Amino acid sequence: MTGPVALGLLGAGRIGRVHARSIAAVEDAHLAAVADPDETAASSVARQTGARPASADEVIDDPAIQGVVIATPTDLHAEQIESAARAGKPIFSEKPIALSLDRARRTVSAVARRGVPLMIGFQRRFDPSYRRLREIIDGGEIGDVELVQITSRDSAPPRIAFVESSGGLFRDMMIHDFDIARFLIGEEIVEVAATGSALVDAAIGAAGDVDTAAAVLRSRSGRLALISNSRRTAYGYDQRVEVHGSRGMVSAGNPVATTVTRAGESGFATDPLSDSFVDRFSDAYRLEIEAFCDLVNGGEVDYPDGTDGLVSLAIADAATRSLETGRSVAVADPTGP
Amino acid sequence: MTGPVALGLLGAGRIGRVHARSIAAVEDAHLAAVADPDETAASSVARQTGARPASADEVIDDPAIQGVVIATPTDLHAEQIESAARAGKPIFSEKPIALSLDRARRTVSAVARRGVPLMIGFQRRFDPSYRRLREIIDGGEIGDVELVQITSRDSAPPRIAFVESSGGLFRDMMIHDFDIARFLIGEEIVEVAATGSALVDAAIGAAGDVDTAAAVLRSRSGRLALISNSRRTAYGYDQRVEVHGSRGMVSAGNPVATTVTRAGESGFATDPLSDSFVDRFSDAYRLEIEAFCDLVNGGEVDYPDGTDGLVSLAIADAATRSLETGRSVAVADPTGP
Amino acid sequence: MTGPVALGLLGAGRIGRVHARSIAAVEDAHLAAVADPDETAASSVARQTGARPASADEVIDDPAIQGVVIATPTDLHAEQIESAARAGKPIFSEKPIALSLDRARRTVSAVARRGVPLMIGFQRRFDPSYRRLREIIDGGEIGDVELVQITSRDSAPPRIAFVESSGGLFRDMMIHDFDIARFLIGEEIVEVAATGSALVDAAIGAAGDVDTAAAVLRSRSGRLALISNSRRTAYGYDQRVEVHGSRGMVSAGNPVATTVTRAGESGFATDPLSDSFVDRFSDAYRLEIEAFCDLVNGGEVDYPDGTDGLVSLAIADAATRSLETGRSVAVADPTGP
Amino acid sequence: MTGPVALGLLGAGRIGRVHARSIAAVEDAHLAAVADPDETAASSVARQTGARPASADEVIDDPAIQGVVIATPTDLHAEQIESAARAGKPIFSEKPIALSLDRARRTVSAVARRGVPLMIGFQRRFDPSYRRLREIIDGGEIGDVELVQITSRDSAPPRIAFVESSGGLFRDMMIHDFDIARFLIGEEIVEVAATGSALVDAAIGAAGDVDTAAAVLRSRSGRLALISNSRRTAYGYDQRVEVHGSRGMVSAGNPVATTVTRAGESGFATDPLSDSFVDRFSDAYRLEIEAFCDLVNGGEVDYPDGTDGLVSLAIADAATRSLETGRSVAVADPTGP
Repeated sequence: MTGPVALGLLGAGRIGRVHARSIAAVEDAHLAAVADPDETAASSVARQTGARPASADEVIDDPAIQGVVIATPTDLHAEQIESAARAGKPIFSEKPIALSLDRARRTVSAVARRGVPLMIGFQRRFDPSYRRLREIIDGGEIGDVELVQITSRDSAPPRIAFVESSGGLFRDMMIHDFDIARFLIGEEIVEVAATGSALVDAAIGAAGDVDTAAAVLRSRSGRLALISNSRRTAYGYDQRVEVHGSRGMVSAGNPVATTVTRAGESGFATDPLSDSFVDRFSDAYRLEIEAFCDLVNGGEVDYPDGTDGLVSLAIADAATRSLETGRSVAVADPTGP
Repeated sequence: MTGPVALGLLGAGRIGRVHARSIAAVEDAHLAAVADPDETAASSVARQTGARPASADEVIDDPAIQGVVIATPTDLHAEQIESAARAGKPIFSEKPIALSLDRARRTVSAVARRGVPLMIGFQRRFDPSYRRLREIIDGGEIGDVELVQITSRDSAPPRIAFVESSGGLFRDMMIHDFDIARFLIGEEIVEVAATGSALVDAAIGAAGDVDTAAAVLRSRSGRLALISNSRRTAYGYDQRVEVHGSRGMVSAGNPVATTVTRAGESGFATDPLSDSFVDRFSDAYRLEIEAFCDLVNGGEVDYPDGTDGLVSLAIADAATRSLETGRSVAVADPTGP
Repeated sequence: MTGPVALGLLGAGRIGRVHARSIAAVEDAHLAAVADPDETAASSVARQTGARPASADEVIDDPAIQGVVIATPTDLHAEQIESAARAGKPIFSEKPIALSLDRARRTVSAVARRGVPLMIGFQRRFDPSYRRLREIIDGGEIGDVELVQITSRDSAPPRIAFVESSGGLFRDMMIHDFDIARFLIGEEIVEVAATGSALVDAAIGAAGDVDTAAAVLRSRSGRLALISNSRRTAYGYDQRVEVHGSRGMVSAGNPVATTVTRAGESGFATDPLSDSFVDRFSDAYRLEIEAFCDLVNGGEVDYPDGTDGLVSLAIADAATRSLETGRSVAVADPTGP
Repeated sequence: MTGPVALGLLGAGRIGRVHARSIAAVEDAHLAAVADPDETAASSVARQTGARPASADEVIDDPAIQGVVIATPTDLHAEQIESAARAGKPIFSEKPIALSLDRARRTVSAVARRGVPLMIGFQRRFDPSYRRLREIIDGGEIGDVELVQITSRDSAPPRIAFVESSGGLFRDMMIHDFDIARFLIGEEIVEVAATGSALVDAAIGAAGDVDTAAAVLRSRSGRLALISNSRRTAYGYDQRVEVHGSRGMVSAGNPVATTVTRAGESGFATDPLSDSFVDRFSDAYRLEIEAFCDLVNGGEVDYPDGTDGLVSLAIADAATRSLETGRSVAVADPTGP
């Protein structure tokens, strides 16, 4: 399906390495160059993939590189996306485009003017189970969607330094759920009510953020989405979705590493979930990069684009304001004039 | 555990008949008299249980009757509770005490002055699985409760006439979930944000009510409860709860009528859930009446009392106002001066 | 469905009391008399049900009693069945009819000559899940049955005194599975290969019996049934069946007392199964007595009769011989000349 | 863990290609050469992996090749194993070593004389769930093993030509279950009783084989293993194991491709299983090749060796004789003099 594709990678941290492995696994694609200020990280990825270490500018400007994968810290995304757009290259960028909606909007406009595709790293859309939910909904089996429920729980809170620069739980964590709610609910979100507490770690509260949160989204015609987030579980990374429609329900749960059940005096027991979002969404990470390679090759791909990135950020902004004000907050169309 | 107990029943409709059967099943308890303006209904219950048909006043005033079970339409509850209290009898009443919080508060005060116990028919507290959740939480296994999620869906909407006199979804349906949230969250609720839509039946919207709804409750220390309600499923009556704590999670799901699984080309299939809340909570209905008999006998019983009825109604009032205003609404202590 | 039915009960031990409760629960049926050499046991049942204590002969001969329920020790079954048949009364008897196939055959013949119905207490046929399996099979959904698998495990071994008089595991315990295999496989069993060991309790081995056993049954056209038995589990009474056909599979598992799941660092846990076959098959015990009342009333009832009792005993005999000889053993038609 | 390892592959059919992919996925291992009489098949594997096409003799004799992977038709296994042993190379071979136990025994002796390791392709031992079962058993959690149950069902029967040359169901299909029974039961098997029928396809019966089969194995101390096999399901490839011990039970079931559940009027539905054993055991196939690379590197590896291959074949022989004679058949120690 894909022709030979040469990609460049900006960022060789945790998620950058995930993308490097995914690129290696795509037939007829290869990682040509990798850039990271941490030369050890860059060299390590280079050695494993055959890519050459380079600066970010070199990656972006190299005419042999056909697409750029951005996995750098958030504050670099907007600028690097714009640079890659100026170089005329298809772009894959981790979310968010920027912490500021205005800044993100300028970036998306700049990309649009250059006419290059921009895929945002909402990898969950490529998870086989979530994709299947969407197919079943699109096929009409459950009728009109009425209510979406998303339970999304990290296994452990991030470092405080990360929390402080993250833009808050709604922009950093729940933004994935906003995107999935939009992916499944089939209408634009017009209103958000959100609340939250710092129950897991008082330091998160002291940093002005929450670690336990709930949001209720409302779509144009009154469809509802309930989302709950927590930064901590005892039993692993927990991601579940259910979609209720006028004629039925579809849900997706957590995959398990083994199918082993143990039974004894205290009952029946199965293993905890994996702690790692990389494990949980390993198929999704691979499939989104495959889709990006298709996109680079000019294929017809259904993918989360810049507008999807903007809209989820606008919802996150509204949720943050709702948390602060105790009011439902309307979600403005971020693509409007 | 219980000595011989003679009970009187007001109301021989659907739920009254459920209670009549439960009383028959309690060892050493019996239904002495039953009152219903519909004489056919009263006679039918009388015939099956050996009770005598009587008027409501006769039931309340009969000195041989040791406790009164009220299963009449909502608008009679307050007055009948007060009459039974004046007669000095322990009272079991279906919820709500009244649709108006003021009226309900006067009733609870009147009962308190008479010093008789008043049990409110929040039967879910007696469901073996929900009770087990509470025991596990009380035992400390999951640490401090942080987040409760309740999914509560009727199999089919009620008649419009009922909807019109019900006080709205939050007072009629979600009130059960408010009570369970309080039962499990371990702190008083101080704030509610609620929203809803009429997606199931436009006539429900025309009657000024919603049929698809969400609420987020916040307790004193910031614990959250998310509740979703719908008046319709395709697959039966759906009641699920999960409670997330600092050290783990407990959940309760839907019991199944059979354990049969069928497998074929299209995969694996199990039966739909029962459509009936009476089936779903059959154990709970029996166990709450057993507990009421213990209460009549002077036993130590953990039960939902008048204050529990008031508080849930206060939360329902706050949720209704939140729906109307788009704001979080504080829940006032209904027992205060 | 049933008219008023007066029943007599022989035997007020564990299973006799189960039947007494079931009779009390059937509308329009009542227990008129109960006999047990242990007068305390008989009186206790009598007090709870309103029956009068009586001798076995009095129960059988009382013209007001329309049906006899036999729940005495095995060595009394044959004689009491024959007495009740002579009295012209429909009979429900616990299995086995007798430990000796010859003796049982004479009893069934005697009953047949009197023309009274004889229902054998293979209660599992009335379990809602097993009954559903049969309906699905009869409806053709899984095509022709090819293979049945039955896992049947007691929670704890019986007393050695019981083991010594039980006729051995195949006649006492696996006989229930032979009956269910016949109920589901849809053809007569023609051959059995069985083996077993005493792994749970050496005393069982010393008594000449096994406590861990396997049998493979073969039907006329070559359909197979695999049965495993054990006298002990750590996790409760375990009864599972799966039926594989040419177009699909149906299975039934263990019902659970609660739907509670606990999750923590070590994973997910659910409760053990009930230890008690009375709990596990409580619906089945009630439904078989309901069916017997229908039978007494002349209703059309699908029930395990004397021949079913004989055939399962013949399979148990063949299995016992197979264990002793290490050969497959043909199952003779016990109803033949 | 593994150093750089150069492997040669004999056989580029379905399973050969699986192994080629696994080798490509092992870090620091590579496929140096591939042989197949079908040059198209060999070239295709060569192209995808960078291996060079070669004859079998060239692969075996090439001094740069450190280990040989044999995935040819069964009738070539013995001779190729012996050639590779003469060349002093560690050998991985698909099962069975030969259809004749005598022939297989000569091969294993020849390998032993050369002192090279021989791993047999019982890949299920490397399945993460099965491996976990073994670890739990070895850890003592379930006490002494008493009973093993294996349900093993192909999704569709093989071609008749294959059936005719396969040595029969017990040597071709159930041999995997014999190996897993040995892997889990913790003692040698001393006796087998087996039976079977041709219910799926009359042509299989006409070819002298069965397609629906059962076997009961007995270990030295009387532990039992029940195995059922069928050549057809409607719902996918079905592999389940449960192990009952004196203190508990462990089981492993079928992994699922998605976690999607659909609910509607007819109940709850999940997807069928994958039809493909390659999908089902994809992890196992990869992990066994990883283990083989470790073995080539001189690592300490727990693996199924030539003796395991012989013993499972001896059990299959005994099962075949049991099917023919209707008797339990003793399993002779195939490694004895």
